[in-house]
Amino acid sequence: MRMLMDQHLLLTPGPTPVPDRVKYAMNAPMIGHRSKEFPLLLEDAAKQLMPVFGSKTPIAIIAGSGTAALEAAAANIIESEDSVIVIVTGAFGERFAQICEAFGANVHRLEIEWGKACAPEVLEQYIDRLGISLKAVFSTYCETSTGVLNPIQALGSVVKTKTDALFIVDGVSCIGAVPVDMEGWHIDILVSGSQKALMLPPGLAFIAAGDAARKQISKTKSSRFYLDLNRYFSSYETEHSTPFTPAVSLIFGAREVCRMIQEEGFENVINRHLLLKNMMREGLKALEIPLLAEDDSASPTITSIKTMDDTTRQLKSFLENHYSISLAGGQKRLKGQIMRIGHMGYCTPHQILTALSSIEMALYKISGKDLLGKGVAKAQEVWIHA
Amino acid sequence: MRMLMDQHLLLTPGPTPVPDRVKYAMNAPMIGHRSKEFPLLLEDAAKQLMPVFGSKTPIAIIAGSGTAALEAAAANIIESEDSVIVIVTGAFGERFAQICEAFGANVHRLEIEWGKACAPEVLEQYIDRLGISLKAVFSTYCETSTGVLNPIQALGSVVKTKTDALFIVDGVSCIGAVPVDMEGWHIDILVSGSQKALMLPPGLAFIAAGDAARKQISKTKSSRFYLDLNRYFSSYETEHSTPFTPAVSLIFGAREVCRMIQEEGFENVINRHLLLKNMMREGLKALEIPLLAEDDSASPTITSIKTMDDTTRQLKSFLENHYSISLAGGQKRLKGQIMRIGHMGYCTPHQILTALSSIEMALYKISGKDLLGKGVAKAQEVWIHA
Repeated sequence: MRMLMDQHLLLTPGPTPVPDRVKYAMNAPMIGHRSKEFPLLLEDAAKQLMPVFGSKTPIAIIAGSGTAALEAAAANIIESEDSVIVIVTGAFGERFAQICEAFGANVHRLEIEWGKACAPEVLEQYIDRLGISLKAVFSTYCETSTGVLNPIQALGSVVKTKTDALFIVDGVSCIGAVPVDMEGWHIDILVSGSQKALMLPPGLAFIAAGDAARKQISKTKSSRFYLDLNRYFSSYETEHSTPFTPAVSLIFGAREVCRMIQEEGFENVINRHLLLKNMMREGLKALEIPLLAEDDSASPTITSIKTMDDTTRQLKSFLENHYSISLAGGQKRLKGQIMRIGHMGYCTPHQILTALSSIEMALYKISGKDLLGKGVAKAQEVWIHA
Repeated sequence: MRMLMDQHLLLTPGPTPVPDRVKYAMNAPMIGHRSKEFPLLLEDAAKQLMPVFGSKTPIAIIAGSGTAALEAAAANIIESEDSVIVIVTGAFGERFAQICEAFGANVHRLEIEWGKACAPEVLEQYIDRLGISLKAVFSTYCETSTGVLNPIQALGSVVKTKTDALFIVDGVSCIGAVPVDMEGWHIDILVSGSQKALMLPPGLAFIAAGDAARKQISKTKSSRFYLDLNRYFSSYETEHSTPFTPAVSLIFGAREVCRMIQEEGFENVINRHLLLKNMMREGLKALEIPLLAEDDSASPTITSIKTMDDTTRQLKSFLENHYSISLAGGQKRLKGQIMRIGHMGYCTPHQILTALSSIEMALYKISGKDLLGKGVAKAQEVWIHA
C-alpha cells in the first residue's frame, strides 16, 4: 500500500523536512538585495544564528551547498604546499581532505576506522609523530556518513596545546542540534549547511570564523572569487549585505528557523535531539538490530544500522515501499553495509515511534520475526523517563 | 501613502517577482537527493532548460548565485598565464575580468563606453591589434549594469573566424527572455542565474557547455572543487544527479518555470519581452526622460534612464515611497547617474503601464511637470499595434 506522498516521512540525514511556517516565510514577496529591507533581513539571520554556532561574530551566509562551505573554509586558509592534518572518520572527512588537496595542501590524513570517533590522544600522538609545523587541522563534528560525533571540544584542546594550527570544523549535519562554543573549544572556523538540523531546503552555506581565522583569511593568496570570505565579511561589515546576489528566499527561511529555535529554546532543541537519539537507539537495540556507532560517540542527529543479514538489507526499500518512510543507505566504503536514519531538525519523538513501529512491522513481514511493539515500548520508556 | 507590501511592484533587474505557482512547486515535500525521485526532477529541469539556453546538451545546475556561474565558466577553462579577452561593457564585464584575473589569466580588457554595445568590428580590430593566441573571449549578453544587449551572434562569428578561442557568454540578466543558439552562434559556454528572466528566487547557477568547452574543461588543471564542472557533468551522465547536495526546492521551482515557458511558448515569451521594452522606452521618451542605451542595443529585459537633473534623481525614491515601486540605481561608475528598470520574467504589459503612470505622477509631484497620461498613451499605442 502506497500512502499519501505528503505524509511521507523523510528520515534521511539531509535534506530534512521543512516546517510549513518556514515555507510561508520563504514565500514572502521577493525583495531586491540592494533594497533597504535586505540588510535588515541579513543582519537578523546572521546575528540570530550566532548562539547556534557558538560564535561571537555574525555568521557569513553564502548561496551554495555544504560543500561550498567546506571549500570556503579550506580555500581561504590554505596556500600551496601548506601542511595540514585532516581527521578522516568517514566520507566527509575524506571530502575535506580532497578539497585541501585540490588547493595544493600537503594533506596528512589521520585515518580512523569508519564508525568510530577520533580520540583526542590519537590526534595528540599523530601530531607528535608528524613533528611538523601545521597550518590547520580539519575535523568533522558529526560525520554524516557514519553518524559519529567527534569530541570536538577535546580535539580543540589538543590542537591548541600542541600546535599553532587553526582548527577548522565541519558542522554540516549537527549544527543546530548540538552544543558548541567556538572560543571555548578553540574552533577557528565552523561551517554548516541549511538542509540538516537547520530545517531549511539545501542552498545556503554558513561560515563562522573567529579572529585568528579572519586574520589568516585576509592574508591568504589562493585563487578564489565567489568563495572569497574577505568579500563576505567586508560587505557585511560595511552595509550588512553580500558581495554577490544572496539566496533571498532561503534567508527569509533562515530568519524564521532562528525564531523557531528561540521559541523552543536552544537548550531544549539540544535535549530534544538527545531524546530522539536515545529513543531510536534503545528501540533498535530492543529489536536486536546492530548499530554501527557506540552510544558515547553516536550523534544525536543520525543513527546508523549495520545491514549484515538479508533481513536488514531489505529494510530500507521495504520501509520506503510499504510504510512511506525514507532512510539513507551507506556511502563509499560503507555502501551496502549500513543504513542511516536521520532524526534532526523538524523531527519529534512521535516520529521516532512511527519509524520504530514501521521497522517492527517490516521485520515481521520480511522474516516473520515477531517483535511487534517491543522497540516502541522501549522508546516510550526512554521518553517517559526523559 | 504607503501601500500593501504584497502589492509592491518589484521592477529591479533581479531578483524579480516569483509566480505563485512556482512558490507552490517549491513547497512540495522535501525529497532526498539520493532518492529515486530526484534524478527524474533534475533530468526534467536540465532537459527542459535546453531550448531556453539554445543548448544541445542538458544544463548543469549548481547551488550558487550568478557569480558562481561566471566563476565556473572561467575557472574550468583558464589556467595560469592563459591570455584571454574580456569585453567590458559595464560592471559585469568587469566582474568577468576580475574573476579571470583571480584565476591567473592575462586579461586583455576590451573597454567599451558604458551604455554602448561592443560592435563586432571593434572586437575584430582588437583581436588583430593584440595579435596573440587566445584561450577564450568573454562577453556579457545583457550587461545588467547598463541594460545593453551585446550582439552575441555577430561577436561569436568574429571569435570563430579570427581565433581558436572559446567564446564564453554571461547570459544572467537575459536568458529566458531572448533568443540564443549556442552552436549556431559559436557560443562554447553560456551561463545564467535563476533570479532574473527565469522567475525564480536567487540561488541556482546554470551552465550550458558545448563539446569543445567540455573537452577543455576535462583538461583544465586549475584549483577547484565545488565548481569543478567535470563533477557535475559526470554525475549527471552517470545517474542524473549532482556531485554535491543540490538546492532541491529551487529545482522544483525551475521545473515549474520550464512548464510556464512551454505553456506560453518560448517565442511568445521572447516577443512579450520585446513588447515590454518597446512600451517602456516609447513611454519614457514621451515623458522626455533621457535613456542611456540606444534602441538597437537596448535589452528587452532592462531599461536605463539617465538621471541628469534634480527631478530624475528623485524619481527612484519617490516611486519607492509613494507608489510602492522598486527600481534600481546605477552601479560602480554609473552610480548616481542612471536608474534601471527591470522588466523581465514574471512581468506583463499592464505592469509597464502601471510603472509609467506612476512615473508621470511622480514627475508632476516632484517638478509640477504635467505629462499625465502621455507616457501611458504612447505605451498603449505600442501594445495595440504589437
